[in-house]
Amino acid sequence: MAGETQWVAVDWGTSNLRAWGIDSDGAIAFSRTSPEGMGKLTPDAFPAALERLLDGAIAGRSSVDVLICGMAGARQGWKEAPYLTAPTDLAQLGQGAVTPPMPGSRYLPRILPGVCQRGSGLEDVMRGEETQILGLGGFSGLAVLPGTHSKWVTVDGTRIDRFATAMTGELYELLRTHSVLRLSLTGDLDGPARAEGLDAGLAAGLEAPEQLSSLLFKVRASSLLSNREPAWCAGYLSGLLIGAEIGGHRAWIGTGQTEIPLIGSTALCEVYRRGFELIGVPSRLVDATEATLNGLKMARGGHGATGA
Amino acid sequence: MAGETQWVAVDWGTSNLRAWGIDSDGAIAFSRTSPEGMGKLTPDAFPAALERLLDGAIAGRSSVDVLICGMAGARQGWKEAPYLTAPTDLAQLGQGAVTPPMPGSRYLPRILPGVCQRGSGLEDVMRGEETQILGLGGFSGLAVLPGTHSKWVTVDGTRIDRFATAMTGELYELLRTHSVLRLSLTGDLDGPARAEGLDAGLAAGLEAPEQLSSLLFKVRASSLLSNREPAWCAGYLSGLLIGAEIGGHRAWIGTGQTEIPLIGSTALCEVYRRGFELIGVPSRLVDATEATLNGLKMARGGHGATGA
Repeated sequence: MAGETQWVAVDWGTSNLRAWGIDSDGAIAFSRTSPEGMGKLTPDAFPAALERLLDGAIAGRSSVDVLICGMAGARQGWKEAPYLTAPTDLAQLGQGAVTPPMPGSRYLPRILPGVCQRGSGLEDVMRGEETQILGLGGFSGLAVLPGTHSKWVTVDGTRIDRFATAMTGELYELLRTHSVLRLSLTGDLDGPARAEGLDAGLAAGLEAPEQLSSLLFKVRASSLLSNREPAWCAGYLSGLLIGAEIGGHRAWIGTGQTEIPLIGSTALCEVYRRGFELIGVPSRLVDATEATLNGLKMARGGHGATGA
Repeated sequence: MAGETQWVAVDWGTSNLRAWGIDSDGAIAFSRTSPEGMGKLTPDAFPAALERLLDGAIAGRSSVDVLICGMAGARQGWKEAPYLTAPTDLAQLGQGAVTPPMPGSRYLPRILPGVCQRGSGLEDVMRGEETQILGLGGFSGLAVLPGTHSKWVTVDGTRIDRFATAMTGELYELLRTHSVLRLSLTGDLDGPARAEGLDAGLAAGLEAPEQLSSLLFKVRASSLLSNREPAWCAGYLSGLLIGAEIGGHRAWIGTGQTEIPLIGSTALCEVYRRGFELIGVPSRLVDATEATLNGLKMARGGHGATGA
């Protein structure tokens, strides 16, 4: 059982806000979540959102350190935390933190920087994923973080060499809800045909990632002509986008690559694992919350951090 | 000057309805357009939409043939005109026409079929473009029809061998209006920086079409990090999608390919022409309206049809 909260670790993303009380041994004293993500807040609304989230969680302390990663540090967030520029050593992450205004509060918030990559045609940004990479606790090779904006990151210990962002998850949602493909994606999208569609999509995307724009239309055409059900179509669309992402970025997989760590939601990472398996590349699932927490601990100073 | 209308040629698309009165020499006696596209009409609303469009245009005839191509023949249109299945000879297009109900009217409408392609993973459909292909009036090789859903079609005279649909135009609109990229695409999108962005996007897409999902994110990152203006970003996004479409489908370009006919809007076809030029492939713009009209004339029986 965890002891008293010594400080608070926070992952403040676009959609959600999550906090964990950490005791003197690095164990979790409490955890809380709220839907008050950065995307819903103006800069002056952040302090009250944090107060609401932590209300009553910590007794008997006059001051509490709060270390935050994620979109709270974006230009349109609470206070901008300037990016580190890749290649960069994440051991500097803590030094790059900024202090946002929280007048009259016992909370002492600091926001970690994100990482950017500069140069014409190389531009890229991350906020939050760098903390998860740090939380891997020492690893060399390619790490992949599936999600709305998947990250492909070449890591060397605590160092990020280069990275790229694939808009795979966002494309899926856009196409499912707003494109002509939505006509084939209404009804039960989780039926038994989904797995078959997923495999067909993965295979198609892996085989011809360069033809993504025309393979996408197969979702509509195969429901019109081959009576594919919505669940098959949803699986195919998801598999196709993920397969094309993996197939199009194979050059990122080093020759000496050990298992690729996949950091993200379990269900999504399972699809990526299957995709990598189809091209003979081993990968392993890493718990995203554990990576985030571990990274925040390491950024704070290494107390209780362990390899994920 | 054109003589009296003998029959009416109609292109009934998803968004618009266009009609041309054709005289005995094949010349245009009148032309009219309306926004009453298939997408806005229930099946029983088509006859009145056609009556409204043609109201007062044709004097002194008790019956008027109306030959229609496009989405009016879709399942969700006026009356379904079953697809021809590729490979197919478009000389059969007229025989495949269906007669939709138009009781008590002097108009005698017929709707031309579309073309489909069957087989697992090969499924595809077109409605309207087959008429433009027929309107090329005899051509062998690859033809490209840029648009919301671009078509790549391998043609041999009046025969369609195979085809594919790239969702390029729809992806552009989706990403511009609904994705995170929209944050970099507000303001003047047609400023002078657009041309530079377009060239950068074409080059990136042609070079690495398989990385489309990650190159897309460069739109956002380059405005955040390199202060690219909205016009540059809009040009880059458009060029990237078109470059990836062309680069990903290079295998469709035959070794003996003559100039690729580009059938579509002039501004859009100019970007495709530039894209093909960057990989050393000559192409030429074909007026889309002329191709449609020519195809309708040929489908009706060849009166006055000429090579486009």
